Amino acid sequence: MPPRRVIGIDAGGTKLLGGVVDEGLVVHHRVHRTWRGGDRSETIDIIVESVEEVRAAAPDVAAVGFGIPALVEWETGVSRWSTHLPLADVRFRDVMSERLGLPVVVDNDANAALLAESRFGAARFVSNAVLVALGTGIGSGLLLDGRIYRGARGLGAEIGHMVIDLHGPDCQGACPGRGCLEVMASGSAIGREGRAAAAALPESALGRRLAAEQEITGGIVTELAHAGDAAAVSVLAQIGRRLGYGLVGVVNVFNPELIVIGGGAIAAGELLLGPAREVVSERALPPAREMVEIVPATFGDESGMLGAALLAFDSLEGSV
Amino acid sequence: MPPRRVIGIDAGGTKLLGGVVDEGLVVHHRVHRTWRGGDRSETIDIIVESVEEVRAAAPDVAAVGFGIPALVEWETGVSRWSTHLPLADVRFRDVMSERLGLPVVVDNDANAALLAESRFGAARFVSNAVLVALGTGIGSGLLLDGRIYRGARGLGAEIGHMVIDLHGPDCQGACPGRGCLEVMASGSAIGREGRAAAAALPESALGRRLAAEQEITGGIVTELAHAGDAAAVSVLAQIGRRLGYGLVGVVNVFNPELIVIGGGAIAAGELLLGPAREVVSERALPPAREMVEIVPATFGDESGMLGAALLAFDSLEGSV
Repeated sequence: MPPRRVIGIDAGGTKLLGGVVDEGLVVHHRVHRTWRGGDRSETIDIIVESVEEVRAAAPDVAAVGFGIPALVEWETGVSRWSTHLPLADVRFRDVMSERLGLPVVVDNDANAALLAESRFGAARFVSNAVLVALGTGIGSGLLLDGRIYRGARGLGAEIGHMVIDLHGPDCQGACPGRGCLEVMASGSAIGREGRAAAAALPESALGRRLAAEQEITGGIVTELAHAGDAAAVSVLAQIGRRLGYGLVGVVNVFNPELIVIGGGAIAAGELLLGPAREVVSERALPPAREMVEIVPATFGDESGMLGAALLAFDSLEGSV
Repeated sequence: MPPRRVIGIDAGGTKLLGGVVDEGLVVHHRVHRTWRGGDRSETIDIIVESVEEVRAAAPDVAAVGFGIPALVEWETGVSRWSTHLPLADVRFRDVMSERLGLPVVVDNDANAALLAESRFGAARFVSNAVLVALGTGIGSGLLLDGRIYRGARGLGAEIGHMVIDLHGPDCQGACPGRGCLEVMASGSAIGREGRAAAAALPESALGRRLAAEQEITGGIVTELAHAGDAAAVSVLAQIGRRLGYGLVGVVNVFNPELIVIGGGAIAAGELLLGPAREVVSERALPPAREMVEIVPATFGDESGMLGAALLAFDSLEGSV
């Protein structure tokens, strides 16, 4: 008998990453999609097509797990609110299960990433950890006393929507708040501050990219910062410090042993994490700040997909 | 046999409130003390004297429970850090037990208050609630999935030290942070903003009190606001909105069914809670904000003392 396999899908704010995953957590076939900015039905179609694509290569898969960037009611599998995809009030589990004819399980994308990191990654030896996924937005997952905390109706754990600047900008359509950690320190915020720095410093590498009409994204800022552009380094440091102020709250509220930073923006590495750690070590409460480690996710960008696969395995064992 | 009785002591940032409590949660003898700003040994002496005073009236008490405004290591009963009393790195449980010759249990004051509210008060029918105690500082307790969450080493749940304004003032010696909810929205902050309003508006009732050289405290602001002074009402509304921005984070992170507001500053009632609710209903994430209620503590200022007594009863039953 071949090892049992499932499909894990991480549907992020900008792109989808999926794969066929076996019980040894080996990924056999991968699929990538970028959203085309469509409506709800187009978005769901893209998700279904992605599953079908990998399933064609592995017709033996037994279940599908999804991580989606949405407030997911855990008990019902209903997506109640999404800041990044048109998935508000979608009976996601039921719809997918009907379309695919397979057992389906769905959770918030950051909860899925946390599951992978807590079972097999950075957080595998701790009981209290917070995962912060820096991407288009900021997702987060809470491991509290060894269990993933979902809130009264699975709608919680949105660290990205803690207010860190009550005079800050509106959260740009992502949520009704203002000055949220997400609008201040996500991958999108890196791009936004990068564009401002490029305009202000035309002689910098960032400024020359802008002059060449290249779109300044978080990824470009990170690339130029690693190449030594002072303007780009300074943008990452600014965002890192803002992230640090958010993490001060996280440390004081959760007293975690570990904060795991994931998501695409972690490509910035120490240029982002260094300034964040510095703020935490200066500003958080002394006993708690001394016991917390701030580390990158073991599985990088793939935590969410692997965690979604783990959810699918759990559902087959009836433990979900 | 008379009903078993214990002593509950709530040692707040400004004052101590204690009492002999029976198993029906009836308080038989009360004791009040105000700190005289002394050092560690004087503070501990005052606590011991308070216990001895009520114990003289009820020599049958079987144990003493303490709530203290400190980061308390739950397992060891060591106070690791206190923003309001000189109790950092005090083996509080052992010291008190030796001095009193009674079984002693100690927890963070807001955790104690939450215990009383969750067993017999406002939060008795819910599994996910956050208690925010507005006093000299801001204490808080987290009831998550039916259990009180303490963090990896009992140092967590400090909602008061979430940053809500990263450009805000330093937390005034209370913590190394800046723009924390505590410095922005505690009872002390009401007094501080009250003094500013009094200076700016000499014709207001607040201003006249200042001219008469009366100290403008949070309590005075609240009293004048209830009497209709527009300047005082506006101070409470400002603080209420700031509280609201902190609660937006609380709602988005915890998805609680209930937020219980306790502490002395709750005397301001709707003048404070109304503006806070308004910010939450506008700024928090839609599904979570619609399911949360924001209510005053059932036991008002006595939640902490009653919760400390419940801890003492629990310790006698070996369930602590």
